[in-house]
Amino acid sequence: MNYHELVHQIRTKKTNLCIGLDTDIKKIPQFLLKEKDPVFTFNKIIIEATHDLCVAYKPNIAFYESMGPKGWESLEKTMEVIPENLFTIADAKRGDIGNTSEMYARTFFEYYQFDAVTVAPYMGEDSVTPFLNYKDKWVIVLGLTSNKGSNDFQRLTFEGKSLYEHVFEKVSTWGNIHNLMFVVGATHADDFSQIRKKVPDHFLLVPGVGAQGGDAESIMEKGQNKNCGLLINVSRDILYAGNGHDFAETAREKTKLYANILSGKISV
Amino acid sequence: MNYHELVHQIRTKKTNLCIGLDTDIKKIPQFLLKEKDPVFTFNKIIIEATHDLCVAYKPNIAFYESMGPKGWESLEKTMEVIPENLFTIADAKRGDIGNTSEMYARTFFEYYQFDAVTVAPYMGEDSVTPFLNYKDKWVIVLGLTSNKGSNDFQRLTFEGKSLYEHVFEKVSTWGNIHNLMFVVGATHADDFSQIRKKVPDHFLLVPGVGAQGGDAESIMEKGQNKNCGLLINVSRDILYAGNGHDFAETAREKTKLYANILSGKISV
Repeated sequence: MNYHELVHQIRTKKTNLCIGLDTDIKKIPQFLLKEKDPVFTFNKIIIEATHDLCVAYKPNIAFYESMGPKGWESLEKTMEVIPENLFTIADAKRGDIGNTSEMYARTFFEYYQFDAVTVAPYMGEDSVTPFLNYKDKWVIVLGLTSNKGSNDFQRLTFEGKSLYEHVFEKVSTWGNIHNLMFVVGATHADDFSQIRKKVPDHFLLVPGVGAQGGDAESIMEKGQNKNCGLLINVSRDILYAGNGHDFAETAREKTKLYANILSGKISV
Repeated sequence: MNYHELVHQIRTKKTNLCIGLDTDIKKIPQFLLKEKDPVFTFNKIIIEATHDLCVAYKPNIAFYESMGPKGWESLEKTMEVIPENLFTIADAKRGDIGNTSEMYARTFFEYYQFDAVTVAPYMGEDSVTPFLNYKDKWVIVLGLTSNKGSNDFQRLTFEGKSLYEHVFEKVSTWGNIHNLMFVVGATHADDFSQIRKKVPDHFLLVPGVGAQGGDAESIMEKGQNKNCGLLINVSRDILYAGNGHDFAETAREKTKLYANILSGKISV
């Protein structure tokens, strides 16, 4: 999916919600465990119940990987039931030397047909560029992450600038707004204005709303640009809103709550 | 495998060689493609031909992942044919918020039964600690990587200390020499003495010898500690030493070359 199609979708649906598919077999409703592929069945039902209220899905790859080859089959089938017009993000946080990053790009862009993949910046340019060589595909580089540990290194200050600011400055020269986004955690609302000075036009993927405590309204006020420029991700708070036979309806109701918050603030 | 068992193995075999299983279906001998699982067959033959000359195997997870669920099956079968007394490293470079890192730890330590997994430090303490909660398992954190891009962020300096030095100092307080190692690329031979001042007793995993140009002899002189403390990894230079029906013998001969270099320098 290209930049204009993504913005068009946000404009049409009046939402920039991304739903994180952190599907944990220990947390899905018990009665689904009798299904042949409970993780896929859960995802399929969640996607059917929510796809008109969001613009993107973000499977968290760790949750599939931890189930062995069968987990990857659940992921593959999940990708097949996500409607074509939704943006798909592999939340994989990969990154390695060039010839290995090429393999990761092949995995997520060619094999599983994702639109985007999250990548860690620590290993530098040759760990990121292999992901930039695909037309209408995206790399989403970790900038300032939502977790407590983001203070350990990301906020170390080098020459008056935090490490994460160096990441924004340097990484943004490797790609452009059509193939590169950044992760900025919703738990850092106060940093968004400063971050927008570094990357005014890029999309930012914002996890950490809901279970992790980030505030979607505040982020929308501080982080949008003229084409919205934000994808707000909610995972657990939607997926596990209910646990009974009506879990799909409960997830849809929770999705509507977020969709309403976002549509009330959206600038496009 | 615990620290003492690893050192004992190095002492007994008089080598600290790790063989990287970066098995690329495009590079293995053509005649293997008629096998049901060519990647597994190649690995099995390489392991049979080399396991008495090395102490560890390091599958590069990207190469398996890029083949979809079948690639993970090849990995699973490969793990089953690695002799019990060899140390196994999942070169995965994972790292995410706590509940997700737990899933990655489960993947590599429980499902695939690796002894160790490589992890990126960018997301800080809660992205690393879930890997430290397993008895006799190891996390190997990226310190100074072997690639050109290591200059982009890892060498940013504040008050006389590089980011990678901050990583050594801080991460080494999260674990101990029994559950924590660091990656230091062989392409940075001149930095080893300085790094040993930060982490005198930890094991260092050293990739970048061979195809990437690192010099094993020089690293052995500068990086060893009283229990050796180094795992020297070679991947492509051994795996693809030959391409004909005698590829196993050719790989063994190349392995012997490295084993001889290392045994001539080893301190234990």
